[in-house]
Amino acid sequence: MFNPVKNTKVYEQVIYQIKDMINKGVLKKGDKLPSERDMVESLQVSRTSIREALRSLEIIGLIESKQGEGNFIRSSFENSLIEPLSIMFMLQDSNPGEILELRKIIEKETAGLAAERITEEELKELELLMGKFKELVEGEQMVSVDREFHYKIAQASKNFLILSIFNAISSLMESFIKDARKNILIKEENKEILYKQHENIYKALLNKNPQQAMKAMIEHLDFTNEYMTR
Amino acid sequence: MFNPVKNTKVYEQVIYQIKDMINKGVLKKGDKLPSERDMVESLQVSRTSIREALRSLEIIGLIESKQGEGNFIRSSFENSLIEPLSIMFMLQDSNPGEILELRKIIEKETAGLAAERITEEELKELELLMGKFKELVEGEQMVSVDREFHYKIAQASKNFLILSIFNAISSLMESFIKDARKNILIKEENKEILYKQHENIYKALLNKNPQQAMKAMIEHLDFTNEYMTR
Repeated sequence: MFNPVKNTKVYEQVIYQIKDMINKGVLKKGDKLPSERDMVESLQVSRTSIREALRSLEIIGLIESKQGEGNFIRSSFENSLIEPLSIMFMLQDSNPGEILELRKIIEKETAGLAAERITEEELKELELLMGKFKELVEGEQMVSVDREFHYKIAQASKNFLILSIFNAISSLMESFIKDARKNILIKEENKEILYKQHENIYKALLNKNPQQAMKAMIEHLDFTNEYMTR
Repeated sequence: MFNPVKNTKVYEQVIYQIKDMINKGVLKKGDKLPSERDMVESLQVSRTSIREALRSLEIIGLIESKQGEGNFIRSSFENSLIEPLSIMFMLQDSNPGEILELRKIIEKETAGLAAERITEEELKELELLMGKFKELVEGEQMVSVDREFHYKIAQASKNFLILSIFNAISSLMESFIKDARKNILIKEENKEILYKQHENIYKALLNKNPQQAMKAMIEHLDFTNEYMTR
């Protein structure tokens, strides 16, 4: 399964071999990795190097270690980019404006793609969310329905890479844009405006009209971005 | 500088504290981290946990260890997303079409932003590249000028997050789309077409015209994508 390792940066070699097995299809989502002891033997490197490599993959969110069971390839990677992106963001002295600009690009396009690819079932789910949206008066809950609405649209784009970037951006927003989605709800009349904007997006998706969906999404984000950069 | 760690997943706590120092500005780009021994003392955890945490940050591309000198926060993070994204891509059974779709979105938008933000100096650099482009006959070299041209435009967008995603996509293309940029050059007449397309993008940037730049970029990518998915 493994080949012995010969090089200086040993943990890199271990990761390289795990990647190689993934690439060849030997290891798949949800699979259990060989035990640390087996890897020590077959790769002929120290247990420390093996553990360094495994912990790194865990940080990136690609494997998970289950107490007493061993290490597994995760079955979902939607959050894998969050940790690297957020540390990078802090170190780079980036500004919240960059997040919002990237978010607008990605969400505009997910809206367009979703309009082409959304299923009837996904439309039903959005309809349900619109119903909840209408009923809500409490800001806190509205924030979570709002978040779910946007997430479902990103999902409906059916492009997993784009969805991963969407998730990473959402997480950056929560961490670095203070009270991102809450400020806007302080003004009572904004609730009606927000409902209307989401309805426009929903209708465009219902019509399977990409241009209309992108336009409605941009309108919505331009409005909310105003509040986030204050 | 550090606080002692108390929890099960020790390496995560170590990373958390390093992140916290970065967030507070105690650690900046290029800074040397405390020695492993100092960290063991101040965090009161094992050397193994410290090393696991450090190696993870190294894999993500956030720190680098220099032989005999210690560990440093990197001064550039442009490549930090590549490793996680590429492993994720393999595990997710994504297809090359997803990369090309994401690339089109990102490059269209970088062209638009660049048209608004490009400096005279950056335009000069693109002009030089166009000159090189014109002279070239050898496919191999053309590929590298092409790559540099697109990179400079992404840079000119002045959004670091977008640039990082651009870099990660480029790396995915090299890894997963076989001979991505070469196939197209097998047909001799394509060289002239490609030159023309790049010239259109360059002119749009020179005119500081975002719409024109996005249109020229899409035209170019639609043409090249045809060859990449064959």
